[in-house]
Amino acid sequence: MLSKLQENLIRECKLIQDEPILVGISGGPDSLVLLDALHQLGYQVIIAHLNHKLRPESTAEALYVEEIAGLMNIPFVQSEADVLGYANEHGFSVEEAARSIRYDFLFDIALSNHVQAVAVGHTADDQVETVLMHLLRGAGLAGLRGMAYRTLPNPWSDRIPLIRPMLSFWREEILHYCSDRDLIPMIDKSNLDQTYFRNRLRYDLIPSLESYNPKIKDLICQTAFIMSEDYKIISSIIEKTWEECLFIQGPGYLALDIDRLQEQPLGVRRHIIRKAIAYHCPDLRDIDFKTIENVISFLANPTRTFQRDLVSGLMVTIEQNILWLAKWETNLPELNWPTVPKDAVLVFNPPCTNSLGNGWELNAGILSATDALREQVTSNHDPYQAWLDISGLASTLHIRSRLAGDRFQPLGMQGRSVKLSDLMINLKIPRRARERWPLICSEDTIIWVPGYRSHHAFRLTDKTEKVLYLQLKTRLKPLMPEKENRE
Amino acid sequence: MLSKLQENLIRECKLIQDEPILVGISGGPDSLVLLDALHQLGYQVIIAHLNHKLRPESTAEALYVEEIAGLMNIPFVQSEADVLGYANEHGFSVEEAARSIRYDFLFDIALSNHVQAVAVGHTADDQVETVLMHLLRGAGLAGLRGMAYRTLPNPWSDRIPLIRPMLSFWREEILHYCSDRDLIPMIDKSNLDQTYFRNRLRYDLIPSLESYNPKIKDLICQTAFIMSEDYKIISSIIEKTWEECLFIQGPGYLALDIDRLQEQPLGVRRHIIRKAIAYHCPDLRDIDFKTIENVISFLANPTRTFQRDLVSGLMVTIEQNILWLAKWETNLPELNWPTVPKDAVLVFNPPCTNSLGNGWELNAGILSATDALREQVTSNHDPYQAWLDISGLASTLHIRSRLAGDRFQPLGMQGRSVKLSDLMINLKIPRRARERWPLICSEDTIIWVPGYRSHHAFRLTDKTEKVLYLQLKTRLKPLMPEKENRE
Repeated sequence: MLSKLQENLIRECKLIQDEPILVGISGGPDSLVLLDALHQLGYQVIIAHLNHKLRPESTAEALYVEEIAGLMNIPFVQSEADVLGYANEHGFSVEEAARSIRYDFLFDIALSNHVQAVAVGHTADDQVETVLMHLLRGAGLAGLRGMAYRTLPNPWSDRIPLIRPMLSFWREEILHYCSDRDLIPMIDKSNLDQTYFRNRLRYDLIPSLESYNPKIKDLICQTAFIMSEDYKIISSIIEKTWEECLFIQGPGYLALDIDRLQEQPLGVRRHIIRKAIAYHCPDLRDIDFKTIENVISFLANPTRTFQRDLVSGLMVTIEQNILWLAKWETNLPELNWPTVPKDAVLVFNPPCTNSLGNGWELNAGILSATDALREQVTSNHDPYQAWLDISGLASTLHIRSRLAGDRFQPLGMQGRSVKLSDLMINLKIPRRARERWPLICSEDTIIWVPGYRSHHAFRLTDKTEKVLYLQLKTRLKPLMPEKENRE
Repeated sequence: MLSKLQENLIRECKLIQDEPILVGISGGPDSLVLLDALHQLGYQVIIAHLNHKLRPESTAEALYVEEIAGLMNIPFVQSEADVLGYANEHGFSVEEAARSIRYDFLFDIALSNHVQAVAVGHTADDQVETVLMHLLRGAGLAGLRGMAYRTLPNPWSDRIPLIRPMLSFWREEILHYCSDRDLIPMIDKSNLDQTYFRNRLRYDLIPSLESYNPKIKDLICQTAFIMSEDYKIISSIIEKTWEECLFIQGPGYLALDIDRLQEQPLGVRRHIIRKAIAYHCPDLRDIDFKTIENVISFLANPTRTFQRDLVSGLMVTIEQNILWLAKWETNLPELNWPTVPKDAVLVFNPPCTNSLGNGWELNAGILSATDALREQVTSNHDPYQAWLDISGLASTLHIRSRLAGDRFQPLGMQGRSVKLSDLMINLKIPRRARERWPLICSEDTIIWVPGYRSHHAFRLTDKTEKVLYLQLKTRLKPLMPEKENRE
């Protein structure tokens, strides 16, 4: 067993010989064997024990672990926890609370002692029970892969791995080792209490499954092993796709590029949405399948202007080709779209340059028809440039935001006039941006909606001699995805 | 239920209204409801029934299905099968044999009737049982994803999908439908026989799991649903990687490019090897995890010259950077390496061109030192070209295969002489190719081992005036991977 454990420590847990390891010791057989074996193999060990104070004998156990540390001459750290109080406060089960406090404690100590890893004594039997618990709770690949020999990053650290070197050993082997080495573990009587879910699995469900297939425990461990490799394959894809789909993230909000997202196969889309929800709710251990389907169907639904409630104070909404997942109380950041102050009118006489605020400026120039055509060809369809026949225009132009009753004759619609408000919806200009979107006007006529359409009446024709050239520019990277801007 | 079923038929099964569907009807509630519902929804149905002749009432059931077909005025096809005989002959369980014969029968009829799909009556309960059976047998993602609404390609056809439109309905809903519509299904008494594994799950294990989580059946269906999407993600990667790794395949053999394979993450490597084994053994429903690990460890093992037994008459061996998986009795195809007839000596006087057979030829020319250097620079390190100082060489050269006791002084080893046999092993010249590998000689000295090394004594120096230029060329695409040739 020692040589197999050494192999696990080096190959799977990636330990090195000369740096300390923190070992969580309960006093039970698993952790005691782990401690003894690490010590025998010459590793530098620090013992940590958390007194959960859940049973009358808890204090005796703490003293026993301290005594062992003393006999072995190994550094010992301990602490006490109010598990029941913590459980009540956070609405956790006693087991969840104990687990949460225990790992917080272990990684606190690990950090201040600069150890290379935190080691815990989980066995192959624990693995089987964990996989079954996930199955009974309805977890996917992430749950069915069970526990790993080495987890980094883990919920407690990005630098210190959590290692489980005993994951290949069965409880029976552990007990043999104990008797061979005269180790006397404490017996945790709560392990016999069948009101604990895990204990019911151990003493009831697993023996029943063995009646179907005597090798079931081996098979479940093997399944977890295969699943964990499959999970890694999928994770690496999700990681890559996430980078492609993520538009912007910040405290309380996150935006995904819908075009990129919808290109993905359904399974990948689900994973990306799960990850986006997990960004806001890291405590939500299993994100509900239905919540994810909710977002998937929201994306498929064409009524994109509404917000929808999700889970735990989270809402989802769509702007242009951006899916927002945000806390209700968060003000979504302004995408870097051009704006003019509400109700202001900025007058300008081309040629000139005008600052619009928010990093945007308007250039206006006058060109010959030939130069205009040449520039139009090389402009690469930048939707923030326009060329208009100057002949019908006033010599003084102005910029303003929209007014009630505004109408417009978009180029390419044979001079048909449409309500500006309808046009803005059809063009998917973000709802929040419509109010202050700059409109370039000549007297009462809107001649250009920057980023989208110019007026039909001022299009360039064979008869055009002089051209008004307009360009909206930003010194910042436009945060709005470029694709949708190009009409 | 009808409208939900119609949704499944269109969205999931991708049926169209006007083409016939073959429905497998046992006479039990599931298939009877499927038949009735398809008929009500106006689909063109053909009924197929296989008499398994396993129970005394089998013939009565066949007559009953025929009667229903007659009453509904629907085309009816039936056949009889010797399931027990087939099971004994192929070493299958009775259930496996029945399944195999049944689907062969259904797809035979489907093909000759030009139907758009073969429909079977599997329910959500069947899905739960299937997933659990896979779990108890130790399957990975491929098993835990359960059954799909639509499977194409399937083991029986690349064109006709197998569809399961009832996969979202529970047995209870089916029975309600029966009584609402006054359908009288036959009761298959073997469904009550607890010696059948599936029935034990149904009446024993699943109720027991429900005591742990009353929603377990829903959760298992949902898990299967998620797993099937994850399986698709992984499949598409495996498909892509397979194309990259596959070197050559033919009847009884298959070769993978080891360099490409070893670049992949462990999980992907496992899938590729599983797929390679499945190429030879499509009947092996679950390829043993240990068999795959066997190949993984064989690849990691540096003693690459041996063959190793795998499963079912399959062997694995390595040549250069090629992993062969082949039937023992198969003669591996010759990779397109250069050969000379054994024990023949081909004399040549440069400049000249000599055919070596197998599509290969040898060009020999004489160059000035300046021209030789220029050519050397532009040769892009082609290992099948050599430039040698002509001054020490005989005017007549020859090509031969190796002789016992051959020695050679490779360029770059300071004139040290090595055994040719050792050199060939070190250079990883395929074992099968060594015997007839062409060696270019001047009197008793090997001056060039084409593809690998030239002789130290004839290297180009400052004093070189005339150069012997040698080139081995093939008119075929060399089947040997190029990477390893470049030393």
